[in-house]
Amino acid sequence: MSKKNKSALEEKKRISVSEITNINSIKSIQNKRKAKLDTNTLITSILKRDISALSRAITLVESTNPKHLEQANTIIKGCLTFANKSIRIGITGVPGVGKSTFIETFGTYITSLGKRVAVLAIDPSSSITKGSILGDKTRMESLVKDENAFIRPSASGSSLGGVARKTRETIILCEAAGFDVIIIETVGVGQSETTVHSMVDFFLLLKLAGAGDELQGIKRGIMEMADIIAINKADGDNLKRAKLAQVEFKRALHLYPEKSSNWHPKVTLCSALNNEGIDTIWNLILDHFNLTSENNHFNKKRNEQNKYWLIQTIENQLKSDFFNSPKIKKELSKQLQLIEDNQTTPFAAADYLLSIN
Amino acid sequence: MSKKNKSALEEKKRISVSEITNINSIKSIQNKRKAKLDTNTLITSILKRDISALSRAITLVESTNPKHLEQANTIIKGCLTFANKSIRIGITGVPGVGKSTFIETFGTYITSLGKRVAVLAIDPSSSITKGSILGDKTRMESLVKDENAFIRPSASGSSLGGVARKTRETIILCEAAGFDVIIIETVGVGQSETTVHSMVDFFLLLKLAGAGDELQGIKRGIMEMADIIAINKADGDNLKRAKLAQVEFKRALHLYPEKSSNWHPKVTLCSALNNEGIDTIWNLILDHFNLTSENNHFNKKRNEQNKYWLIQTIENQLKSDFFNSPKIKKELSKQLQLIEDNQTTPFAAADYLLSIN
Repeated sequence: MSKKNKSALEEKKRISVSEITNINSIKSIQNKRKAKLDTNTLITSILKRDISALSRAITLVESTNPKHLEQANTIIKGCLTFANKSIRIGITGVPGVGKSTFIETFGTYITSLGKRVAVLAIDPSSSITKGSILGDKTRMESLVKDENAFIRPSASGSSLGGVARKTRETIILCEAAGFDVIIIETVGVGQSETTVHSMVDFFLLLKLAGAGDELQGIKRGIMEMADIIAINKADGDNLKRAKLAQVEFKRALHLYPEKSSNWHPKVTLCSALNNEGIDTIWNLILDHFNLTSENNHFNKKRNEQNKYWLIQTIENQLKSDFFNSPKIKKELSKQLQLIEDNQTTPFAAADYLLSIN
Repeated sequence: MSKKNKSALEEKKRISVSEITNINSIKSIQNKRKAKLDTNTLITSILKRDISALSRAITLVESTNPKHLEQANTIIKGCLTFANKSIRIGITGVPGVGKSTFIETFGTYITSLGKRVAVLAIDPSSSITKGSILGDKTRMESLVKDENAFIRPSASGSSLGGVARKTRETIILCEAAGFDVIIIETVGVGQSETTVHSMVDFFLLLKLAGAGDELQGIKRGIMEMADIIAINKADGDNLKRAKLAQVEFKRALHLYPEKSSNWHPKVTLCSALNNEGIDTIWNLILDHFNLTSENNHFNKKRNEQNKYWLIQTIENQLKSDFFNSPKIKKELSKQLQLIEDNQTTPFAAADYLLSIN
């Protein structure tokens, strides 16, 4: 019997043997029963592909209320065995590259193949801008109306790690709700691209011809992560420049060692506006899926990602517990002053702080 | 009274009131007295610029024997107030760029100005290769004989963090021994350049013309750290190519935002073999020193570096304590299996492991 069930039972017993004087106790039991009922109903409904149940569950995942999070954990656990059966695609590109239009066209193409697509986002700035990406669903008019598509703006949170956790859990819920393709969009803010890369099977980098940010992509390590570089807006007068850019990007990709998946990153042209080159991209994603399924890199990578998130979560918590301890906070500033005054070294100070923890 | 002195005193008392039957006790007291004497003598000798005392102290820093490390900590503490009065210069460059010849010429130039120079190295591969850089002092023939120069090969260690700590502590000892300039050499192995950058005031990147590794420098974030890019072997037939490379590197440097020190990184030519351009480099280092001393960036950066090392040391220790605990090791592999079997999520597993710690 789970801890929770046990404690609910104990509470029930305690009340049944005593005189009931407190109406709140009854309410509390009723609430717990209701929550349990809700949780089970939500799981069943999600597995039946009920979108409003999915939305409610994601809201619980995104909540800061501990009770909601407990419920969310139960729902995730119930969904887990039905998850993991999708292709997870990360999409990034600078503002202006046409991400919304691309996702609209790409998503619609995928649903036209009879598949169901969920679009999520990771936007570490969303707590400030209240969801700058995917917040404006009007930019994805037809996808919003598509019954085989589900669009959810970025969770907000004080840390990228927190937002990432919520998105990872939302992926599980979407997969349990039968979505075949999960798209995770991000903008190039801080570490957000690395975060998205660490939770997807395939990473698509959208580029523009002649934007002159090739070196930036190299510098920030984004290009190294790409499985496809798709040069968008490759239409009309732009086509010639796009073809030149294609050659340049292919050259730049040679900088990197071969991927352990044996996949050779591709550079392709597309025009999301004119619905050109979208099928090519999807077919390349399927090629990648087939290759990595055959050589077992697909599962290996997902296991590595799981391990990465496990370790990251633990490390962040260890650091946060240590440095947020009032005792350490106080002593840390003292030690920093001693270092500044040449009375101690950073290493001796570290040894001291660890010894008093 | 320090803990150590106190315990020595207590041991003395205990033995003086009891019958002395054990010759080992006497030996132990003698050893402790000797160590204390040694420690004080070493500090005094280091401050008197005694090179063999400096070498002995560094050997204690590099030891894995806890007793030696305790002695080393006492010596470092005794030296601290006399340290911090040097310019610390990091030098990196790929094998073949002429680092040894450059350091030989550059070091000799500095001593010719009446200054004293210490050359250290950080080579994370040294535990395997038994000191691949600076190990072969014959490549610095005249600097080795120079009485105002001190050359010490890289400490070895199982981790870059361990090697870094030893080098940082060695810097303090060298400064206390009156060295005005500390050069820290590294090769581009893993994170070694970032490590060196985080312990120096000035970072010099040696390059060759036409080596075609400009993009690699951008990719690995090395160029971003450089205060000077010096194109070596800019002599004879190579001069023209070196001048072209200079233009290219200047352009690449424009990729990066302005440094908080207000220093604009320079690209300069030199020939260490012909002793050309070495004075220019030294004068640029002095310009940098004057600028950052005036705008107080020099001290600010050293404080930030100290804080960085303090935090790094603590974080590494927290992680190592956690993941090396036998209980966690055992449960971690169980949790990883549960994740693989879709029975739990990385986040739930992390919460569980943290709860049993």
